[in-house]
Amino acid sequence: MAVGNGALAALLPVPGVRLATVSAGIKKPGRKDLVLMELAPGSHCVGVFTRNAFCAAPVIVAREHLADCSGRPAYLLVNTGNANAGTGAPGLADARRCSAALAELTGVEAESVLPFSTGVIGEPLPVQKIIEALPNALTDLQADGWLAAASGIMTTDTRPKAHSLSFHCEGRDYVITGMAKGAGMIRPNMATMLAYLATDVAVSTPLLQALLSEAAELSFNRITIDGDTSTNDACVLVATGAAGNDPVTGAGGALYNALREALQALCVELAQGLVRDGEGASKFVTVQVNGGRNEQECLDVAFTIAHSPLVKTALFASDPNWGRLLAAIGRAGLPELDVRLVGVYLNDVLIAEHGCRAASYREEQGVAAMAPEEIVIRIELQRGAQQATVWTTDFSYDYVRINAEYRT
Amino acid sequence: MAVGNGALAALLPVPGVRLATVSAGIKKPGRKDLVLMELAPGSHCVGVFTRNAFCAAPVIVAREHLADCSGRPAYLLVNTGNANAGTGAPGLADARRCSAALAELTGVEAESVLPFSTGVIGEPLPVQKIIEALPNALTDLQADGWLAAASGIMTTDTRPKAHSLSFHCEGRDYVITGMAKGAGMIRPNMATMLAYLATDVAVSTPLLQALLSEAAELSFNRITIDGDTSTNDACVLVATGAAGNDPVTGAGGALYNALREALQALCVELAQGLVRDGEGASKFVTVQVNGGRNEQECLDVAFTIAHSPLVKTALFASDPNWGRLLAAIGRAGLPELDVRLVGVYLNDVLIAEHGCRAASYREEQGVAAMAPEEIVIRIELQRGAQQATVWTTDFSYDYVRINAEYRT
Repeated sequence: MAVGNGALAALLPVPGVRLATVSAGIKKPGRKDLVLMELAPGSHCVGVFTRNAFCAAPVIVAREHLADCSGRPAYLLVNTGNANAGTGAPGLADARRCSAALAELTGVEAESVLPFSTGVIGEPLPVQKIIEALPNALTDLQADGWLAAASGIMTTDTRPKAHSLSFHCEGRDYVITGMAKGAGMIRPNMATMLAYLATDVAVSTPLLQALLSEAAELSFNRITIDGDTSTNDACVLVATGAAGNDPVTGAGGALYNALREALQALCVELAQGLVRDGEGASKFVTVQVNGGRNEQECLDVAFTIAHSPLVKTALFASDPNWGRLLAAIGRAGLPELDVRLVGVYLNDVLIAEHGCRAASYREEQGVAAMAPEEIVIRIELQRGAQQATVWTTDFSYDYVRINAEYRT
Repeated sequence: MAVGNGALAALLPVPGVRLATVSAGIKKPGRKDLVLMELAPGSHCVGVFTRNAFCAAPVIVAREHLADCSGRPAYLLVNTGNANAGTGAPGLADARRCSAALAELTGVEAESVLPFSTGVIGEPLPVQKIIEALPNALTDLQADGWLAAASGIMTTDTRPKAHSLSFHCEGRDYVITGMAKGAGMIRPNMATMLAYLATDVAVSTPLLQALLSEAAELSFNRITIDGDTSTNDACVLVATGAAGNDPVTGAGGALYNALREALQALCVELAQGLVRDGEGASKFVTVQVNGGRNEQECLDVAFTIAHSPLVKTALFASDPNWGRLLAAIGRAGLPELDVRLVGVYLNDVLIAEHGCRAASYREEQGVAAMAPEEIVIRIELQRGAQQATVWTTDFSYDYVRINAEYRT
């Protein structure tokens, strides 16, 4: 199950980036399970990583290498089928062996190769298979390899998630392209979200990191399928500088603004794509909370709604169950919440206010609002000027089936 | 579905308390849906109530009345079939009308009647039906009415939850009896947990409140079905003083200790009963976290595990999925967690340590540990001396069915 048709717009190559997608035999024979990204000299790279204390071996090594190569890696190496998570010290050595092998083949430092893994937790990484597939991958590198790569990083995703934007600024054209995989936060025994983004804009490393952190906060950190945080989450942004502009080093200029806007739009598109393809998803739900004293309390209300199994099963049933929404808002922990001010909307239908069902509300309106695949739940707190939006899915039989049937 | 056979031990009357259970016609004709508890003069009463900001009208009125009668109510009036929640100002008036009608019939002050409701959210309380059933209820009052009352307060519970303990102290016999209903934290569109406890021990009000707060914290606040907090939760403890002892006014004496122990055992028994009868429950799971720096971080880990949909679906599948347990521990937010020290046990089988599968672990052991209806997940943090235990259930197809099929 997934929401919408998932059709992808054309993916634009990013000058300075080439990608290869090959089969290393980690998953079933013939399945593409190894993706290699080559970054031209002059590129640099920033990342945001899982905050899970049990983070996977490749996350630890990728972070180390990114620091050791001063943010200028030559290769990103991604395998699926095995997360190399919950693998202890041997897992760290395995991740380093893969990087070292690619470095030796290509004549770069081992620190210039960032490893990423996604798939089953707790199994030893099949290092030899990965190493043997590297020559093929190097041969296969191509600038228009984004679509194949977006499929190559999938695990139990039902379809690839990728998107491109181009923008024009001060007489020059730029591009930003990205791909991502998801999304359960942990998939069945899988370690989940990976996202790779690249642009040809020249931009300083500190600014690139700030832009990525901000965009991830407003996109990947605003989605939830089941509230579980993966051990392997990673999102990487490459700036190749191939567009030849004077490097952007400070906030506020026209190109900074254009890049920021494009990056945020790209991340939101990919994050929403993860939700639409969430495990067992039959609804795509936007939870928008307005009128909070600060952004955090808006997020607290939005995530309490988005994580509530009772709200999510009601969404699955297309049931306009405003009682469950009120109950979720009421336990979000907001200080001095005056429940008489709170308004609850499904799409644009006011369903509850003054702590009870709205006088104007008719059940047919709620049923009509809940029928489509895409639903907006809007909460008006009426106690401030801040707002926040998160995206989530419903909770279906299929979610239980997918996560219960999958065995270690 | 429910875990275990739910057989109840004999329920002991509490001198000073009489109970009636009658049909007011709120639910289907003939279904008992109104419970009245009469407390003899000299009894007093303390309570703990939901922290949900959208708390139901009867919760607001019961709290008010309890204060206004100085903790000495004469009657507790409980209806099922309608939660009188999400009903705004008219709901408050309805709850007050029920109390006033009973007060008029019995010649007590309206503030001496505490109202409680459980059932569907958002529908007007059928006040007239309740008022018309009061004479019958008054006629029906009897000392051994606990079992009928435990069934009378049920909504979608599949069986009554009640328990008694007697204890002997310094030449005198005492009794404590309680009943509870649950448990989804909100049931399908229902507003959930109610518990009524009574003892014949004479004990001062401040001490009684302290004892109840402590016992509730270690029992009802340590269970979770789905993490949703009801709008109607209430737990009330009555001390009739009918045993004739010198009132207990301070901590530390033999009777204080005996009462405290019996009260905690009663609350744990009832709380576990709510979990065993949780929506769609096929497993009863104890999550025990040892070796924390403080109790709160043990609770954080325990509840993160107990709320994780991925852990709960694995429990449903009897899948010893230690990767999901590690991932849940890792996202519980513990500062400076050294994952290499963490040990994960299923019953007494060590399944993970040093951040990976335990070398000694065999899959057969995990499968055997997960097979029974009752499972203990034990986490050893090895960073302190504190511990905490919570109880929960799995997440089954039936949970989704119960909560998705039920319509507003």
